[in-house]
Amino acid sequence: MHQIFKSNLIAKFLDGKHVGEIINVNNFTSLLLAKQNSISFYNDSKFREDLLKTKAGIVILKDCDLSLRKGPSIVVDDPYLAFAKISNFFLRKEKKEFIHPNSIISKETILGKDIYIGPFTVIGKNCTISDKSEIEANVTIEDNVVIGKNVKIHPGVTIHCGVIIGDNSEIFSGAKIGTDGFGYAKDHDKKWIKIPQTGSVKVGDNVDIGANTTIDRGAIDDTVIHSGVKIDNQVQIGHNCVIGENTIIAGCTGIAGSAKIGKNCMIGGASMIKGHIEIADDTVISGGSSIGKNVNEPGKRFTNIFPYNIEHKDWLRIAINLKKIGKKND
Amino acid sequence: MHQIFKSNLIAKFLDGKHVGEIINVNNFTSLLLAKQNSISFYNDSKFREDLLKTKAGIVILKDCDLSLRKGPSIVVDDPYLAFAKISNFFLRKEKKEFIHPNSIISKETILGKDIYIGPFTVIGKNCTISDKSEIEANVTIEDNVVIGKNVKIHPGVTIHCGVIIGDNSEIFSGAKIGTDGFGYAKDHDKKWIKIPQTGSVKVGDNVDIGANTTIDRGAIDDTVIHSGVKIDNQVQIGHNCVIGENTIIAGCTGIAGSAKIGKNCMIGGASMIKGHIEIADDTVISGGSSIGKNVNEPGKRFTNIFPYNIEHKDWLRIAINLKKIGKKND
Amino acid sequence: MHQIFKSNLIAKFLDGKHVGEIINVNNFTSLLLAKQNSISFYNDSKFREDLLKTKAGIVILKDCDLSLRKGPSIVVDDPYLAFAKISNFFLRKEKKEFIHPNSIISKETILGKDIYIGPFTVIGKNCTISDKSEIEANVTIEDNVVIGKNVKIHPGVTIHCGVIIGDNSEIFSGAKIGTDGFGYAKDHDKKWIKIPQTGSVKVGDNVDIGANTTIDRGAIDDTVIHSGVKIDNQVQIGHNCVIGENTIIAGCTGIAGSAKIGKNCMIGGASMIKGHIEIADDTVISGGSSIGKNVNEPGKRFTNIFPYNIEHKDWLRIAINLKKIGKKND
Repeated sequence: MHQIFKSNLIAKFLDGKHVGEIINVNNFTSLLLAKQNSISFYNDSKFREDLLKTKAGIVILKDCDLSLRKGPSIVVDDPYLAFAKISNFFLRKEKKEFIHPNSIISKETILGKDIYIGPFTVIGKNCTISDKSEIEANVTIEDNVVIGKNVKIHPGVTIHCGVIIGDNSEIFSGAKIGTDGFGYAKDHDKKWIKIPQTGSVKVGDNVDIGANTTIDRGAIDDTVIHSGVKIDNQVQIGHNCVIGENTIIAGCTGIAGSAKIGKNCMIGGASMIKGHIEIADDTVISGGSSIGKNVNEPGKRFTNIFPYNIEHKDWLRIAINLKKIGKKND
Repeated sequence: MHQIFKSNLIAKFLDGKHVGEIINVNNFTSLLLAKQNSISFYNDSKFREDLLKTKAGIVILKDCDLSLRKGPSIVVDDPYLAFAKISNFFLRKEKKEFIHPNSIISKETILGKDIYIGPFTVIGKNCTISDKSEIEANVTIEDNVVIGKNVKIHPGVTIHCGVIIGDNSEIFSGAKIGTDGFGYAKDHDKKWIKIPQTGSVKVGDNVDIGANTTIDRGAIDDTVIHSGVKIDNQVQIGHNCVIGENTIIAGCTGIAGSAKIGKNCMIGGASMIKGHIEIADDTVISGGSSIGKNVNEPGKRFTNIFPYNIEHKDWLRIAINLKKIGKKND
Repeated sequence: MHQIFKSNLIAKFLDGKHVGEIINVNNFTSLLLAKQNSISFYNDSKFREDLLKTKAGIVILKDCDLSLRKGPSIVVDDPYLAFAKISNFFLRKEKKEFIHPNSIISKETILGKDIYIGPFTVIGKNCTISDKSEIEANVTIEDNVVIGKNVKIHPGVTIHCGVIIGDNSEIFSGAKIGTDGFGYAKDHDKKWIKIPQTGSVKVGDNVDIGANTTIDRGAIDDTVIHSGVKIDNQVQIGHNCVIGENTIIAGCTGIAGSAKIGKNCMIGGASMIKGHIEIADDTVISGGSSIGKNVNEPGKRFTNIFPYNIEHKDWLRIAINLKKIGKKND
C-alpha cells in the first residue's frame, strides 16, 4: 500500500470534480479510520458525524453534500462506486510467478506465463492454465480443465473435469465446480438409478464464485454461468442452470436444476428458485423469497418473506388461523 | 466411449421390444446431439420436435410414441429409466490401480485390491479400504474408518474417525462425514459446555452424498444413513439422525438432530426437518417446506411454500394483513 | 478411556450428592449401553424404561427421580449439564507434539510448544501458532494469522490472511474463515465493481465454528465473533457482522452483512437474519424463522415458521386464499 497518487489525478480518473488543495494519497479507508494521507468516501447521511470528524486528506462525495466538508474533496455522482474503482489502485497482487515444488502438475498440461501455483495443489491432464493466473494451496483441478487469464483460485477449491473458467474470474475457498448433477430414475424396486452427468460447467469472464458454493455439471448439455455474474458463499446451482450476464446472487441461495435466470437480476440471500423455470432479465428477488413459476416480464420485484419480526406468542395465534384459511365451514 | 453394442442386445437387457433394423451403438446422448451411432430417448412431448429431427441411430421410447419415430427404436415402459440403465454401459472407470507416492497412508491400515489413492491424500491408522475403491486427491480419512468395495471419494472430502461407508457408495467433493454433533449444555454463568460426541456415522451401500454436504456423528449412538439413500449438495444432517432406505434428499436441506426419516421418502430442496421427529415411509416433502411434527401415516405429501410468485407490492399488502390474522378486534 | 475415577469424587466435582455405594467408573455412556463401570444420566421421563433396565454402575439424576433408581446415584440440579462436564474427564487428546515433515510452514512463522501439525498443511508468513494447538491435515493458513492456545483446527479448513483465533477455540472441517465479503457497486454499464474487503475476522476464546461454515472478512472494519460463541455447520456469516458472547447459532443459518447479534442469543437452524440490523441480548429465534427488523428489547422470542405440518392438498387451498388477503374486492 505504499504507492502514492495525486488527488487531482484520481479525480480525473473518476470523471469527478476536484475541490480544494491537491494532496498525496497512499491508502483508502473509512471516514473514521482515515488519516491525512487517506482517501475516503461519504454516501449516506447516517455517517454525517463521521464526515464532520474525519481526518481523511480527501473525501469523495456528492455535490449536494459538499457544504458539509471543509477539506479537499472529489465530487462524483456515485461516491460508493467511485470508491470501489479507486480502491483497486491501492491493492496489489503480491504473488510472484512461482510453481511450488510440492504441487503436482501433469506434464500433459499447458501453463502460461507469470503463473503462481501453491503447495499441495494437483492439476490433471490436458488442462490449460492461462497467463497471470494464481492457484493457491490444496486445490484439486481434474483433467481437461481450462482456466483463463488472470484467474484467482483460493485454497481448498475443486474444479472437476472439463470445466472452463473465463478470464479475470475468482473462485473462493472451498467452492466445488463441476460436481455431478443430482439426477436419478426410479427402478421398479424403488431403488434409484443414477443418470450419468456428462455435460460440464462453463464459467464466463469476470465471474466471482463464493466460498463453499457448489455448481453442478450438466446432465448432457452444460451448466452456464455467463460473464460478470457474482455469486456469494454457500450458493447451490443445479445441473443445466443458465445464469445470465451480470446477475448477482447472495449467499445461501439454492437454484434447482435447469432454471434459466436472465441478465442483470439481483437475487437476495437464502432465496429458492425452482427447477426448470425461467426468470426474465432485471428481476429482483428479495432475500429469503421463493420463486416457483416463470417470471416473463422483466424488471419486477418478488417477495414472500415477512418484512417485520413476529413474536412467538403472536405467531401461535396467526399460524392456527392461517391453517383455517379458505375452509368452507370457517 | 469406444465400446460398441448391438441394439438388439440393448433391447434385450432392457426387457424392451426392438423395432426396425439392428444397428451398432457406441455412445448415448440427447436427441439433438445424437448421431448415427448414438442411442437416445424420448419421454416428454415437449421434445417432440427433437424426436422428429434427431439423427440418433436408435431411440428408446414408449409404445404410444412409436408412431412418431421412423427409424430403429426400443419400446419400453419407462424410457428415462431405461436410458439411465444403459448409459452406464458407455461410461467406464478410467482410473487404474495406483497408490500415489505423495499420499500418506498409515502402515496400520489395510488396503484391498485395485485401489486408487490420489496425491496429498491422508489415511489414518486402522482403516480398511476395500477392493476397487477410488480415493481422489486432497482427501483426509482419519483413524478407524472402514470404506467398502467400489466406493468413490472425490477430492477435498474429510471422513472423520470411526465412520463406516458401505459398498458402491460415492462421496462428492468437499463433503464432511462424521463431524461433531452440535450439542451443548448451558452452565450457570450462561456459558455453553460441549456434550462429547462419541458416536459415529454408518453409511450403507449404494449411497450418494453430495458436494459440501455435512453429516454429524452421533452423541452416543450412531447417525445412520441406510442403503440406497441419495443426498444432494449442501445438505446438513444432524447427530443421531436415521435416514431410511432409498430416501432421496435434494440440495440445501437441513435435518436437525435425532430426526428419523422413513424409507423411500422424497425430500425437496431447501427443506427443513425439525429435530427429534419421525417421518413415515413414502412421505413426500415439497421443496422449501418445513416439517415440524411427526408424520405418522405413510405416503402423504406436505407443502408450505408458495406455489406462485408474489410481487413485492402485493406482498406488502398481504404481509400487513397476515399480521392481523386472528386478532380479536380485527 | 482407561483412566479410573471414584464416584464420590465425581459427585464432589459436580457439587452433587452421592447416594449409595462408592464405585469405580472408567467410561460414560447412555443408560442402555452402560455397564457396571459406566456412569450415565437420567433427565427425561421418556427414558424411564431405560433407567429401570440400565446396568450403569452409577446414574446422575435429579432429586425427584431418585426413587426410580435402586443402585448408586449422584443427585444434581441439571443432570445433562453434569454429564457434559464429567464426560470431558474420559476423553483425552491423543495427538502428541509433532510437526509432520510433509507440512509446509514459513520460517517467518512462530510456533509455540506442544503443537501438532498434520500432513499437507500449509502455514504462511508471519503467523503465530500458540502452545498446545493442533492443526490437522490438508489445512491452509494464509499469512499474518494468529492462532491462540489449545486451538483445534480440523482437516480441510482455510484461514485467510490476518484472521485472529482466540484460545481454546475449535474450527471444524471445511470451514472457511476470512473469505472476502460480498460487496459490489454497480457501474453505469450494469457491471459490478468489487469493493475491496480489507478488514479481517476476529474470533474470541472458546468459540466453536462448524463444518463447512463460512465467515467473511470485513470490508474495512473487522467481522467479530465474541468469546463463547458456538456456531454449527453450514452457517454463513457476512462481512462486518458482530456476534455477541455466548450466542449459539444452529446449522444452515444465514446472517447477512453488518448484522449485530447480542449476547446469549439462541438462533435456531435455517434462520435468516437481514443485513445491518441489530438484535438485543438474550433473543431467541425459532429454527427456520427470519428476522427483518431490529430487535430492541432483550429476551424475546421470534417465530415465523409453521409449527404444524400442512398436507399438500390443504396448502393449495390455503395458498390461493393467502394471495387474496387484504384485497379490496375480496
